[in-house]
Amino acid sequence: MRKHLLSAGDLTRDDAELVLRTAEEMRSLADRPIKKLPALRGRTIVNLFFEDSTRTRISFEAAAKRLSADVINFSAKGSSLSKGESLKDTALTLEAMGADAVVVRHWASGAPHLLANAGWSRSSVINAGDGTHEHPTQALLDAFTMWRHLGALDGRRVAIVGDVLHSRVARSNALLLQTLGAEVTLVAPPTLLPLGVEGWGVETSYDLDAVLPKVDVVMMLRVQRERMNLKGGGFFPTVREYSRRYGLDGRRMATLQDHSLVMHPGPMIRGMEITADVADSDRSVIVEQVTNGVAVRMAVLYLLLGGSEPAVGGDAGDQTSTPDGGAQ
Amino acid sequence: MRKHLLSAGDLTRDDAELVLRTAEEMRSLADRPIKKLPALRGRTIVNLFFEDSTRTRISFEAAAKRLSADVINFSAKGSSLSKGESLKDTALTLEAMGADAVVVRHWASGAPHLLANAGWSRSSVINAGDGTHEHPTQALLDAFTMWRHLGALDGRRVAIVGDVLHSRVARSNALLLQTLGAEVTLVAPPTLLPLGVEGWGVETSYDLDAVLPKVDVVMMLRVQRERMNLKGGGFFPTVREYSRRYGLDGRRMATLQDHSLVMHPGPMIRGMEITADVADSDRSVIVEQVTNGVAVRMAVLYLLLGGSEPAVGGDAGDQTSTPDGGAQ
Amino acid sequence: MRKHLLSAGDLTRDDAELVLRTAEEMRSLADRPIKKLPALRGRTIVNLFFEDSTRTRISFEAAAKRLSADVINFSAKGSSLSKGESLKDTALTLEAMGADAVVVRHWASGAPHLLANAGWSRSSVINAGDGTHEHPTQALLDAFTMWRHLGALDGRRVAIVGDVLHSRVARSNALLLQTLGAEVTLVAPPTLLPLGVEGWGVETSYDLDAVLPKVDVVMMLRVQRERMNLKGGGFFPTVREYSRRYGLDGRRMATLQDHSLVMHPGPMIRGMEITADVADSDRSVIVEQVTNGVAVRMAVLYLLLGGSEPAVGGDAGDQTSTPDGGAQ
Repeated sequence: MRKHLLSAGDLTRDDAELVLRTAEEMRSLADRPIKKLPALRGRTIVNLFFEDSTRTRISFEAAAKRLSADVINFSAKGSSLSKGESLKDTALTLEAMGADAVVVRHWASGAPHLLANAGWSRSSVINAGDGTHEHPTQALLDAFTMWRHLGALDGRRVAIVGDVLHSRVARSNALLLQTLGAEVTLVAPPTLLPLGVEGWGVETSYDLDAVLPKVDVVMMLRVQRERMNLKGGGFFPTVREYSRRYGLDGRRMATLQDHSLVMHPGPMIRGMEITADVADSDRSVIVEQVTNGVAVRMAVLYLLLGGSEPAVGGDAGDQTSTPDGGAQ
Repeated sequence: MRKHLLSAGDLTRDDAELVLRTAEEMRSLADRPIKKLPALRGRTIVNLFFEDSTRTRISFEAAAKRLSADVINFSAKGSSLSKGESLKDTALTLEAMGADAVVVRHWASGAPHLLANAGWSRSSVINAGDGTHEHPTQALLDAFTMWRHLGALDGRRVAIVGDVLHSRVARSNALLLQTLGAEVTLVAPPTLLPLGVEGWGVETSYDLDAVLPKVDVVMMLRVQRERMNLKGGGFFPTVREYSRRYGLDGRRMATLQDHSLVMHPGPMIRGMEITADVADSDRSVIVEQVTNGVAVRMAVLYLLLGGSEPAVGGDAGDQTSTPDGGAQ
Repeated sequence: MRKHLLSAGDLTRDDAELVLRTAEEMRSLADRPIKKLPALRGRTIVNLFFEDSTRTRISFEAAAKRLSADVINFSAKGSSLSKGESLKDTALTLEAMGADAVVVRHWASGAPHLLANAGWSRSSVINAGDGTHEHPTQALLDAFTMWRHLGALDGRRVAIVGDVLHSRVARSNALLLQTLGAEVTLVAPPTLLPLGVEGWGVETSYDLDAVLPKVDVVMMLRVQRERMNLKGGGFFPTVREYSRRYGLDGRRMATLQDHSLVMHPGPMIRGMEITADVADSDRSVIVEQVTNGVAVRMAVLYLLLGGSEPAVGGDAGDQTSTPDGGAQ
């Protein structure tokens, strides 16, 4: 695998499948009494968050600690590093302090690419969400969740529903799922589809009801209330219109095929984009996505920081018998 | 012991005494060169704080790290998890990420109970203070401190003095101390005693001077200035009235019996509820309460996360010879 | 070495040289696959920051973790410990919780001294910057960087340039560099030199151009924009005047001797006190200062917490063969 993970579009099919297989090994640790591997002992991973995202930060932190890495959290909101100092100097500083990987979340699209191009010789950059651009580990955990339930994704149909325009999750998923052979349909009101979506290679639809019976997976996007039209009559739909046309409720869920999955990247607003009965139904793999997120991030950290051998040996609790590719 | 620690009232006498004995083992570690046990290696403990409490958070964090657990801090004030997402979904998310225990501090009374009832199958919930309701580890550390100085608490008399109305410390102590056989007197102005206090099984008094000579322990509560009547003439006493009638100064301390202890949960406002000479006197065990807090929290974490054997073996610094009930 | 590190002026030449030699050992770890030593396993280090300083906090945190210590971060801005409770009680609380060292950053000059004099019996205090007073580990890392490039500092000439008045970096460097035998010249406009600078034993100059050809090191200070005169005509220089007279650009750098070093404590404002071409030139050791900061802080923590044997053995990755003075 390459040195950085900036975009889901950078991953070849081989890369992506290696992450999925490695994540499966990591996932199997969850059932062991000691869920910890020594693979990244002595490595330092910095969580550099220019934007709040507790959920993503905790997931990366748990992943890194389960690999025995040292984790340093750095909320750059209002910090001195973010004032006056350029992102390039921040990057050079973190590498000079010995960071082996920097997990970066930034409100500006492209910030992780800037970091990765700052002249680093050693540190890896992992994009944990940049602006409205990409969130590649989210796409990997979504693909991993589908893969565990449905097997190979070739020819599988996935609907991504909601505010695609502002969603880095949608973009990263569209890229990765196609790499893995799936067919993607974006379902959204016309004003919430991005310009240039024709170039994504996906289908689009304004009609959720027409799409649902055909898909293997329906992935609901988080609605950002502040982007909805609160008064009506404007460019974006009102909350009520949105919920009625693009929300997933029990009636709509009943039109899915028996094996089809319901997904959501979280956090959900129950009653808005998804009703409580759907979120808690047997088809919903939303909670499992969270568990898989930790496994996928373990896999990404392990592979980027030099793991070449299998990560998980016969006894994960035994430091001596576990292959320790990352740390040798 | 049970799975969660939500209320001091849930603890049987056996439960409570098991915590005290285990805390004594943990306390003995403080004198060793390596104060760390491998008991919770590979376990993940999340500090989920919806309200600032640096002191309590640090105490739990130190306790968890001394047991070799991984700790993830999560200040939920203004986080995305606390906006839009329900407490139930936060709970499910943390369990899905592999949290073995969640230490929760919340401004709303009852929040830890909600978390514990969210359908978790595995994680333990520890109440680190909820609203004006309970703070059970504070009560345990207080009881532990008394027990170390006075032996068994049967028949011992404890005065809890001050703003009982708003104090989770008072409520948890009243419950636990009675379970352990002590007699509790709440000393407060009538407007700072809670409704329904008759049902607590304790005595009440408005007269600190009358109570002091009879008690083995006087526990001063923290005064929350914002709850005092700053202008006088109102429902609550003024600061000056409060200090004069319910503050502990050298003159009052002199009326205590020779063996009696002075306690305070901290942080103190010297000169308000307690004078500096009393806080620093030989009778004061206030600093020791802080040390005991770490030991008691180690005991609680150890017992809730599955420790069934003695926590501390012959050589705490030696990972192989230390019984490791929690992590096997 | 002594118990606390409060001022660069407290260090004897022997003390300082011991830190530099120990830092060199720590620095050598950076090239090993596992950059971690077991020296402080089981020790607890609290980062107590009453003022934001992400860069310094991360450097100390990385240093402590590389020595296998447990780190507890505590941002005291707006915390309950900082409200109502005295610094003395905060100090007693942290020691009672088992902190072996407290790294303190405070906006008030002298705060670390107050902490150190609070009656602690065991914890070490490390000053990580107090007001406009001192920042001794910054001075140590600067001296270490010079020493690696220039050898012994006796007779070496160092210019410290810029807002000396508000700079704890300047003060600590002036003290330490003289202890190590160097000659220091402070270069600043008269209004940015502190009162009583005559007593520092250093030379002063208002003329950067005259000083540059004579020095072995030019250390640029960070400009605090809020302290500049934004309108002109006032007590302090305008930003433009400052930049023109005291900024380091390519033309000025060309007047340095071939072996001379350019330093900056960071974060830099490129184009203000230093131009980008100078910051990125071969003479600049600014990024290396960051790396050396971690090594020096490891050395300080190691020495203060009881390390008496060499810190780094034959194989840093092997816990059993590494001398482990700090933790035995």
